[in-house]
Amino acid sequence: MANERGRPTESLVSREKIGDAALDIASEKGYTALTMAALARRLGVAPSALYNHISGKDELFYLLQDAVMQLVDVSPLERALESGVGYRRALELWATSYRDVFASHTPLIPLIAAQPIGDSPRTQEMYEVVARAMEAAGCPPEHVMGRIIAMESFIYGSAWDVNAPADLFDPAAIADEHSALGRAAEAMRAGAGGTTAAKKGQRDANPYADQPFRDGLESLLDGMLGPSSSA
Amino acid sequence: MANERGRPTESLVSREKIGDAALDIASEKGYTALTMAALARRLGVAPSALYNHISGKDELFYLLQDAVMQLVDVSPLERALESGVGYRRALELWATSYRDVFASHTPLIPLIAAQPIGDSPRTQEMYEVVARAMEAAGCPPEHVMGRIIAMESFIYGSAWDVNAPADLFDPAAIADEHSALGRAAEAMRAGAGGTTAAKKGQRDANPYADQPFRDGLESLLDGMLGPSSSA
Repeated sequence: MANERGRPTESLVSREKIGDAALDIASEKGYTALTMAALARRLGVAPSALYNHISGKDELFYLLQDAVMQLVDVSPLERALESGVGYRRALELWATSYRDVFASHTPLIPLIAAQPIGDSPRTQEMYEVVARAMEAAGCPPEHVMGRIIAMESFIYGSAWDVNAPADLFDPAAIADEHSALGRAAEAMRAGAGGTTAAKKGQRDANPYADQPFRDGLESLLDGMLGPSSSA
Repeated sequence: MANERGRPTESLVSREKIGDAALDIASEKGYTALTMAALARRLGVAPSALYNHISGKDELFYLLQDAVMQLVDVSPLERALESGVGYRRALELWATSYRDVFASHTPLIPLIAAQPIGDSPRTQEMYEVVARAMEAAGCPPEHVMGRIIAMESFIYGSAWDVNAPADLFDPAAIADEHSALGRAAEAMRAGAGGTTAAKKGQRDANPYADQPFRDGLESLLDGMLGPSSSA
């Protein structure tokens, strides 16, 4: 198609553009719609033009990983590393951005959670910044990787929860004999937690997802950096 | 088919059997293979026999949820509630069982994480036992639901990690300029964490998944029940 329009095919394609287009397709039409043919159509080039840049679908996953991970905001971590203070708050902001990105891309979680980072340079850069911040915040090197993985597990699970329906634990649907569960569900509904997502304008988001995320993240960071950490 | 063999169709079908068969199909062939027709074939009955028990696929999800949640071992929580001690250890065992069940059923996570519990009585029972144990361990009622949700987010994410490849963070694939990440990945590989899953005989499981899960769970429980809790 591009050739018909007289544009030079090659300039339309780069590894970065391939990754971004792959993310667009996967986001809009689901991950199964992501084929080399669909990618070529999206970029307006012949499939053969893609193969000048990548070897095939396996390599495409690495570019896709880079494209989605680049959406995660690491700038608070970079600022903390520059100034030498505020690591804990920066890790909170990073984790929140990471959750928000994957709340908008939940179908990618199974892929990304199992995708080695070897051939994804921008993804490696994100982890490098996080690892440096963890070290600088006083986390012993032998615990850095495991604690990043624990945070990621929590982040991915929390991203699913953003997409859960608000009536996941509807008090009205809980049987009378389940009194402790009923009390817990009522208390959550009555709490302040139910307004946060709405405030952010995420109209379809589960309004009860933010409080558990904030509380759990606080516990994880307490465990990693110490509860009285001013890091 | 059942009728051809002269067996009474109705006795082959119950809501529980339908749930178990749905779980078998989803586990073996993936969630998209779970149709009313496939379910009828699996149970050896005519599709019409299913509709005597359930209204359709929406209701099927509730039975499927009950079938998988019933695999999670709540007996440590029940024993703790009987004896009045050992809640924290019991919550650890429950969370570990929950993770292990979903590590074997990761394709169900997106479904279960977004499935209201209203029409799943056995699922409600699990949450009731957990909520009672949390209350008994001293968790304020207004925090019970949120903390269960936070643990579940961590559990679901950790279940994905069990299925991640061992070379997810392969030190050899990390670029030299990413020195903090390289150190972290090397340290994880050198640590004792890499043997646990193999010991349990989960041949294909990620050998680096257990340590992050144990550490993260400890932090979450510290945050929920207090670090010095003997609950």
